[in-house]
Amino acid sequence: MATIKDSVHDHIEVTGVAEDLLDTPAMQRLRRIRQLGTVSLVYPSANHTRFEHSLGVYHLASETLDHLGVAGRTAERIRAAALLHDVGHPPFSHNVEELLYRHTGKYHDDVADLLADGRVGAVLREHDLDPDTVAGLVAGEGRYGQLVSGELDVDRMDYLVRDAHHTGVPYGTIDHGRLVRELTFVDGELVLAEGNVQTAESLLLARALMNPTVYRHHVARIGKAMLRRATERLIREAGYDAETVRRWDDADLLATLRRTDATADFADRLSTRDLFKRAVWAELPDVPEDLLEADHERIRELEREVAAAADLDPDSVVVDVPPPPEIRESSSRVVVNGEIRRLDRQSPLVSALRVAGRNQWRLGVYAPAGAVDRVGRAAVRALGLDVDGAPITEVRGGLDTTLDEFG
Amino acid sequence: MATIKDSVHDHIEVTGVAEDLLDTPAMQRLRRIRQLGTVSLVYPSANHTRFEHSLGVYHLASETLDHLGVAGRTAERIRAAALLHDVGHPPFSHNVEELLYRHTGKYHDDVADLLADGRVGAVLREHDLDPDTVAGLVAGEGRYGQLVSGELDVDRMDYLVRDAHHTGVPYGTIDHGRLVRELTFVDGELVLAEGNVQTAESLLLARALMNPTVYRHHVARIGKAMLRRATERLIREAGYDAETVRRWDDADLLATLRRTDATADFADRLSTRDLFKRAVWAELPDVPEDLLEADHERIRELEREVAAAADLDPDSVVVDVPPPPEIRESSSRVVVNGEIRRLDRQSPLVSALRVAGRNQWRLGVYAPAGAVDRVGRAAVRALGLDVDGAPITEVRGGLDTTLDEFG
Amino acid sequence: MATIKDSVHDHIEVTGVAEDLLDTPAMQRLRRIRQLGTVSLVYPSANHTRFEHSLGVYHLASETLDHLGVAGRTAERIRAAALLHDVGHPPFSHNVEELLYRHTGKYHDDVADLLADGRVGAVLREHDLDPDTVAGLVAGEGRYGQLVSGELDVDRMDYLVRDAHHTGVPYGTIDHGRLVRELTFVDGELVLAEGNVQTAESLLLARALMNPTVYRHHVARIGKAMLRRATERLIREAGYDAETVRRWDDADLLATLRRTDATADFADRLSTRDLFKRAVWAELPDVPEDLLEADHERIRELEREVAAAADLDPDSVVVDVPPPPEIRESSSRVVVNGEIRRLDRQSPLVSALRVAGRNQWRLGVYAPAGAVDRVGRAAVRALGLDVDGAPITEVRGGLDTTLDEFG
Amino acid sequence: MATIKDSVHDHIEVTGVAEDLLDTPAMQRLRRIRQLGTVSLVYPSANHTRFEHSLGVYHLASETLDHLGVAGRTAERIRAAALLHDVGHPPFSHNVEELLYRHTGKYHDDVADLLADGRVGAVLREHDLDPDTVAGLVAGEGRYGQLVSGELDVDRMDYLVRDAHHTGVPYGTIDHGRLVRELTFVDGELVLAEGNVQTAESLLLARALMNPTVYRHHVARIGKAMLRRATERLIREAGYDAETVRRWDDADLLATLRRTDATADFADRLSTRDLFKRAVWAELPDVPEDLLEADHERIRELEREVAAAADLDPDSVVVDVPPPPEIRESSSRVVVNGEIRRLDRQSPLVSALRVAGRNQWRLGVYAPAGAVDRVGRAAVRALGLDVDGAPITEVRGGLDTTLDEFG
Repeated sequence: MATIKDSVHDHIEVTGVAEDLLDTPAMQRLRRIRQLGTVSLVYPSANHTRFEHSLGVYHLASETLDHLGVAGRTAERIRAAALLHDVGHPPFSHNVEELLYRHTGKYHDDVADLLADGRVGAVLREHDLDPDTVAGLVAGEGRYGQLVSGELDVDRMDYLVRDAHHTGVPYGTIDHGRLVRELTFVDGELVLAEGNVQTAESLLLARALMNPTVYRHHVARIGKAMLRRATERLIREAGYDAETVRRWDDADLLATLRRTDATADFADRLSTRDLFKRAVWAELPDVPEDLLEADHERIRELEREVAAAADLDPDSVVVDVPPPPEIRESSSRVVVNGEIRRLDRQSPLVSALRVAGRNQWRLGVYAPAGAVDRVGRAAVRALGLDVDGAPITEVRGGLDTTLDEFG
Repeated sequence: MATIKDSVHDHIEVTGVAEDLLDTPAMQRLRRIRQLGTVSLVYPSANHTRFEHSLGVYHLASETLDHLGVAGRTAERIRAAALLHDVGHPPFSHNVEELLYRHTGKYHDDVADLLADGRVGAVLREHDLDPDTVAGLVAGEGRYGQLVSGELDVDRMDYLVRDAHHTGVPYGTIDHGRLVRELTFVDGELVLAEGNVQTAESLLLARALMNPTVYRHHVARIGKAMLRRATERLIREAGYDAETVRRWDDADLLATLRRTDATADFADRLSTRDLFKRAVWAELPDVPEDLLEADHERIRELEREVAAAADLDPDSVVVDVPPPPEIRESSSRVVVNGEIRRLDRQSPLVSALRVAGRNQWRLGVYAPAGAVDRVGRAAVRALGLDVDGAPITEVRGGLDTTLDEFG
Repeated sequence: MATIKDSVHDHIEVTGVAEDLLDTPAMQRLRRIRQLGTVSLVYPSANHTRFEHSLGVYHLASETLDHLGVAGRTAERIRAAALLHDVGHPPFSHNVEELLYRHTGKYHDDVADLLADGRVGAVLREHDLDPDTVAGLVAGEGRYGQLVSGELDVDRMDYLVRDAHHTGVPYGTIDHGRLVRELTFVDGELVLAEGNVQTAESLLLARALMNPTVYRHHVARIGKAMLRRATERLIREAGYDAETVRRWDDADLLATLRRTDATADFADRLSTRDLFKRAVWAELPDVPEDLLEADHERIRELEREVAAAADLDPDSVVVDVPPPPEIRESSSRVVVNGEIRRLDRQSPLVSALRVAGRNQWRLGVYAPAGAVDRVGRAAVRALGLDVDGAPITEVRGGLDTTLDEFG
Repeated sequence: MATIKDSVHDHIEVTGVAEDLLDTPAMQRLRRIRQLGTVSLVYPSANHTRFEHSLGVYHLASETLDHLGVAGRTAERIRAAALLHDVGHPPFSHNVEELLYRHTGKYHDDVADLLADGRVGAVLREHDLDPDTVAGLVAGEGRYGQLVSGELDVDRMDYLVRDAHHTGVPYGTIDHGRLVRELTFVDGELVLAEGNVQTAESLLLARALMNPTVYRHHVARIGKAMLRRATERLIREAGYDAETVRRWDDADLLATLRRTDATADFADRLSTRDLFKRAVWAELPDVPEDLLEADHERIRELEREVAAAADLDPDSVVVDVPPPPEIRESSSRVVVNGEIRRLDRQSPLVSALRVAGRNQWRLGVYAPAGAVDRVGRAAVRALGLDVDGAPITEVRGGLDTTLDEFG
């Protein structure tokens, strides 16, 4: 058994297959991938990594399994999946995930190949575990897949408290001890036991408050957009292979961006926090429907169009259109008066989250500081935005650096 | 200057009039009044007092005044009001407040007499402050009254984080440092500056989650109901004066209840946590309209009726009808795109809180453990409750002691 | 199983005999006994109770037993002892313990009678546990007694972190998770496993820093001396029985002191924090040997003598002579290079603690604020103190209220 | 003013020259230098950076200056020095500092050139501050230099609490709020005011416990030794310039090590945590005097000798001889009874620290796992160690992975 000290869960005891997996290169790589990517440009303390998060998820999974009375091979398999659930993350976590997906067809939780090969595959097989089944759990499949990847999964419980601890933003501080104790299976479905409406609400509200404050803070989004643009050039212009990039760590990507001519300028801007600024920051109702559905190539075209109108190099304009807010219903379930109920039917707070998600949604257009005004005007025209006054909403005026800016 | 160590805000520096007020008997009494009354029967660590909370409110008021640039006499007055805002609390805080109000006509924030008399009045006058004006601030009057008692007041900021720290329930852990920094006056009104929709939401959501989990936990409500019943007997049957009781501390009330024949049994039950249990726990739609509007005497009548039907002593039945959930709108205001907006118009989460408040509301009927079934049946009839199945909703069955029970 | 939320250990799961013991009046009384007595006069947040501490000790004992692989009846017995270890505490914890010992012959850990009688005895016997054996564990007897009461016991681990949490003084924040994991039995002796010299040191250093800062802060000592004096009058002059007082809670003692003529003045001073001040605060080398060995009656005589010389009522002078610093050696043991070593032989820090204890030792003489100077002079003469300059050492001058004063 | 959220101090307000310095490339580089270098190989959460630490030091310096009443140009200069105090750190902080010193003649606090040049110099001059004077403060010169670099400096206060927060090892959790409030100048010397013997002790004891547990943990030392060896090869064999390496960040160094043939193997071992193991771990009395005084070249010779005897490549053996424990006296000073006293004269604990430092000192010899036994034997002979039994002391046997190993 290895006992590892963690800043969030204190002592984490790692046993069995998990202990052997710890030492694989695939797991050790996660030590050098920041959990929140460019969020550290806003919250300077947010330098925690996918490695410690993976340990935390393993720890909460173990505790939940103890409470559920799940043991033996089944438990080992779930613990392996919990520890390995993020081995598919590219450098800077989610920041370049979509870009790499376009090239490789794989998201971070598509890990069948990573689990079957090399040391990880060997360790799993030594412990009589089938890599494909473990990869299935990572993708949320099967009865226990919900525990690793689902609405009430231990992944989310760990990242909320961990991100709160490291950013200093307390909204993520949920009661994971209670959540873990109250999870139960009813008719094959993972639910929260009776008396836990607030427990369930707290988990979803925590995320709803962390989203705009941390995960989707505009400075983090700008940093992410610049990193994505640079990585795209690396692959398209400097000829790097997306499958290779996917296996790098943060240092590999940063160092390569720096020493490649096509990306050195972006790398330098990211390193010195000389970021683009917002030229447009528009609410959902102001954005035409077709722009929401535009694919990557169409967005690139619009960027070139805006850049031309503003007399700028095409790479000096970024149009950042997040996916439309989820309209699918929350699938969290709680037991109320003996019957399983969908949380969004039970909780007016949770159903309001969908509306809040729409309110928080913002389209961004970013450009170098000096060009912000003319890019803003050009973008409003080219994108067909229905913006009345200033093209940027919800920014405090008159202050160059604000709490909002720095976090 | 006195520097006082606090478990929540670390070092609190107390100066000027506040330093002199600290030593008055009225302030020192608060050392012996638990902040959360009978909540400690659910959360055993919740033994913090009105004294430390008052220091915390003073501290946050001072910080806010520094940020707002308010100084001099005005600031001294507000700091005095912040420190003194709870001197009117009876023993066990809110637990017997309503009862004493029926006898004295005073709630805890009606403190004009307490501030004018004795040492407190003398200290205020020595510092050239008018006790009546300070009492007005405590009651929320005037431009700065909102800071001491209002939707965005520092009272709430302190109690949420403090109650979270001491109960161990993290939902109250708001970002008070940010709130204090972002408060500002616009057109004479206290609002949160631009970019703070989530900051404002977090304050209200924190309270919405703490309410059912902590403040209105059914065991705390049962304890409170028993304490209220005992105190009522003390006044009605043992002839104690309500104005005197109002000035006691927790020890006075507890010791007097113990040595008075009419109340010794209740005192013993509270001391040994041998509490009544729920006979009924009914949702709002199941309760007839007229019961919601019944006054104290009508409720007493119904209790006697239920007790008679269940063949019990009248004091063995408690009917606990909380005030109907607030229908008044939230008055929190934030600046969005340069204009002041009502938070409940801006935030779907906050408007959902009103619905959540209705969902969380419960009427309770309590009785000794052995009599719960027959009291439940009698109460459903006598109160005209529209209960289909079991008279208790949202209780986990089959466990004598549950997380829900103990916290 | 009961799951109880604790501000220090988060969720505590109470099972078996412990769950039944929780509901006994003897345990419930501890809810109303402050862990640190008059220390709350210095650190206003220090209102935590023996009840939550007892739960914490139970929790750490359970964790240790799991790690040691101790189960079954033996484990139940130890868990019962851990939960019950403080039921013998009089009101205000240690504050009046010595006084009551003089009258009853019992310290707080002499609990054979309390465990044999009433509900506690019944519960123990229902679970096939012998009350006397459990009482023996509380007194530190037998192989496992060291775990409940010894140099490396879980009692100390809990109180250090809990007192740090509630006072806000971080010195007590030890790594209890590591201590619990590293405890092991070697040759029947409880020791810390190899590699834990610093773990062991940290426990002793934490206590060495908490002692003068918290537990023996002069304001807490003055409050304690006044409480002791008042309680002594209660027994001697008002005829209360020491055995009865021993079974009270804080509220009983405080309320009785208030309504008894002989003690009302002390009660009022304690309630309004109108405490005596230091007239003398002398270091060990300045105190004559015979004074260190004086018994209670001799001290009372000296107090009368000083009072007479200062023209004061005898009860207005308190001479407070703590027991001489321990000279016995620390019995903590750690494994170093495969052999068990005494920590004070291994660690120069620990052996220095004995010297530090001597340095921190202070004799105090206390009197009402106005009489401090003349009492100081009279006491220096009467007690034969070898004080050169001012009779008070280590006090910052010129400030009426200082960090030192308030904490 | 910029308000920055910090995981340790919550909100940090940055104003004046500091705000402008924040955006310089020299400061931004610190975002990518881990505070504790290879300690993250032991404590996986320890990924905090020199950037957030620099903000923390700036924050504590500002608070101290407010308490001392220092304002204006003097305060601006000190705040600039506090923020900039670590700009001289090479990648991986102290890990390769000594090595680079041999090549560049500069330690991390020799920053005159860095402050005079480029953006930093420009910003300082724009604010009428002389770069040389600021560099002097960083080096601890002058009356206020003690505040930035001295026994009671704010640098140490920040790193202790920050390292505790991020490793999860609580020993560093000092009361920095009290330290900052109690610092004062007496006769031009920075001391702690009366009543602060324990405050001063706690600072030194915290470091004494963190040293062996965190900073000098053997796994961190092995990682550091391997990184140093690799960097040495990079300079000697691959021809990189030490001045250039000094200005890199962690990613630069790691990526360069990886793609350079002479260092790729070391880089791979560090990346996959496939570290050397201890072949020797010897206490101070077992090490011959001349070895303690051996210079770098002599150590290299011995390494080659041991490697030859063990039939290994010279780079597979590392002899790690830390500087002998400090014998110079602690210069912390506290006011006791009105006079300034040296803390080590006042506190037996502090004087014991010197002995503890000697006890904790270890010479290490490291080699690949498979060669540990024969390297151990060869090293004992070649280095003339006076080792009786096993060449490794204080390691728990029989466990491949232990708490000691992982932290």
